[in-house]
Amino acid sequence: METLLQKEINEQPAVLRRFVEEEVDNVREIARRIRETDVHYAVIAARGTSDNAAIYTRYLLESFCDLPVSLAAPSIYTLYKSPPSLEKALVVGISQSGKGADVNAVVEEGRRQGALTLALTNYAESPLAEAAAHTIQLRAGEEKSVAATKTYTSQLYAMAWLAAFLRQEKASQQEEKEREAALRALPDQVAAVLALQELIAARAERYRYASHLVVVGRGFNYATAFEVALKLKELTYMVAEPYSSADFRHGPIAIVEGGFPVLAIAPTGAPLDDLAALISDLEERGAELLVVSDRQELLEKARLPLRLPVTVEEWLSPILCVLPGQLLAYHLALAKDLDPDNPRTLQKVTSTL
Amino acid sequence: METLLQKEINEQPAVLRRFVEEEVDNVREIARRIRETDVHYAVIAARGTSDNAAIYTRYLLESFCDLPVSLAAPSIYTLYKSPPSLEKALVVGISQSGKGADVNAVVEEGRRQGALTLALTNYAESPLAEAAAHTIQLRAGEEKSVAATKTYTSQLYAMAWLAAFLRQEKASQQEEKEREAALRALPDQVAAVLALQELIAARAERYRYASHLVVVGRGFNYATAFEVALKLKELTYMVAEPYSSADFRHGPIAIVEGGFPVLAIAPTGAPLDDLAALISDLEERGAELLVVSDRQELLEKARLPLRLPVTVEEWLSPILCVLPGQLLAYHLALAKDLDPDNPRTLQKVTSTL
Repeated sequence: METLLQKEINEQPAVLRRFVEEEVDNVREIARRIRETDVHYAVIAARGTSDNAAIYTRYLLESFCDLPVSLAAPSIYTLYKSPPSLEKALVVGISQSGKGADVNAVVEEGRRQGALTLALTNYAESPLAEAAAHTIQLRAGEEKSVAATKTYTSQLYAMAWLAAFLRQEKASQQEEKEREAALRALPDQVAAVLALQELIAARAERYRYASHLVVVGRGFNYATAFEVALKLKELTYMVAEPYSSADFRHGPIAIVEGGFPVLAIAPTGAPLDDLAALISDLEERGAELLVVSDRQELLEKARLPLRLPVTVEEWLSPILCVLPGQLLAYHLALAKDLDPDNPRTLQKVTSTL
Repeated sequence: METLLQKEINEQPAVLRRFVEEEVDNVREIARRIRETDVHYAVIAARGTSDNAAIYTRYLLESFCDLPVSLAAPSIYTLYKSPPSLEKALVVGISQSGKGADVNAVVEEGRRQGALTLALTNYAESPLAEAAAHTIQLRAGEEKSVAATKTYTSQLYAMAWLAAFLRQEKASQQEEKEREAALRALPDQVAAVLALQELIAARAERYRYASHLVVVGRGFNYATAFEVALKLKELTYMVAEPYSSADFRHGPIAIVEGGFPVLAIAPTGAPLDDLAALISDLEERGAELLVVSDRQELLEKARLPLRLPVTVEEWLSPILCVLPGQLLAYHLALAKDLDPDNPRTLQKVTSTL
């Protein structure tokens, strides 16, 4: 029988196609409103998986749209009740359910101070959507699994569209067209990457007794490292820790000894040389390498090569690179005789103040 | 024979006293310059231990000084070469050595764009200090150990002074005096907490074969969780992962089973109820609790209670709470027959681009 989680993983191409059909016009309109507003920086509030989507968004907004991004510390708003000045900010709340009280508190404070506010949520009737002036709806359908998958990729996809529209002001018509074509090609590419399922199902057992693992990524895929580590923790209870390849070398690499498993997210893009150097270093230390990449020279170094069947522009690669990680977490849960639909002690909506 | 690391841990009260004598007037002057400038937000660039000081600084600047803070992603500047607009920013670089190329790139870009720039470093002649318009010098003396300790606490101390001076505009004279008195009392309080050394030396052996551990803290002590986890990784090669208590409940708590070690940073302050609730939850799961606190009711729940002998205002508590963590990492390294002065494969200055 198909589990709920497997069903939702497999739904991802359809969810992204639906987003294009039903939501992209709204995203274009919201981008226009943002461009008309005197915004100096962005503040993004989120928790858990949505916070990993926020990390991706920061790279998009800073490098595409010149907007410095602060990933909010909600406790400043909720525990200390001393929010910073948000007058010139674009305040964004990201939450699948739209019910996270701490995320909502940041958006409400932004609105109170007169900032432009935006909600990214699966529910247009949620408290988050009501708190924000503008809402982008994920249109992912109900997500029944505790572990978020389809709402994560649709959050990234939504923000990629938003950044593409925000950038239009300085892009040529040619660039604009190419960017939109690349975005429209993604749902089919997601389907192509999900074909890794068979290989991963066959190989996951190797890690049945691994107690810990490090996931490294950099730049746009820093978010992927965080999200894959979170899925592994939630579904397999493995101590999986995410790092940027740069930070990892700054101390934590000391923990790597022979057999230590490291999953590297290394698609074609600006951080590739840095990742390649780290992978060589880890190889010398005798680490067990799992590599998500479209590059033969890096896949060859891996004990578990997870080949991306397509090469995309780096800014879109996180939407593909997370998929082998979702599949690995899922099949490793099965190998450990755990129930992926009911991770112990987790609830779908976590409300913290 | 005393190791270099032990010597530097023990030097911390003296280093902070020297900072008061030799640097505080300069900090006051820099605060005045910042207040005179039209600054809308702050961008802080740092790596490793200095990045943990940056986390602390974000809580100070946001909650004391109304300044939203963005912790910079250096790759945006170095790999993608598409920096955001920094015109209205206060751009801060934090680096012990002042030689981190990626941190310097952020400060240089800030200066190029006309932003107010500030370096926090142990070396007034370093490239970082040269890149920035203003420099706060740590005056910690040479740090010979690879694992940073005295430069971390002096970074926090420097930023606490800066935030106190920045806040003066809206504080009453009475508040101002109290704040300065609290800051001046800290070096002696640091010495008092270091007296935990004997207890920790006697108890560290218990964790000789622990392969992993989670460190939780929230608010101002979110930084402490990161720094203690980093010390444990660098010195003992344990897989130590930091979390805010709020984020931890959002999924990762699934990894906790009977005997799983969790170190909670829980001093008196706004997040105390949240930490207390998490500690009770972890107790029910049969976790092994290590607790840094001044509160009897929380220490009683711990298998290893690490009692703070003083209660300070929460914004200053990170300077005390990190000390038991430093001592634990140090004595656990000794228990594992590791050389704390030479963690494998680490270098004092890590240069990443």
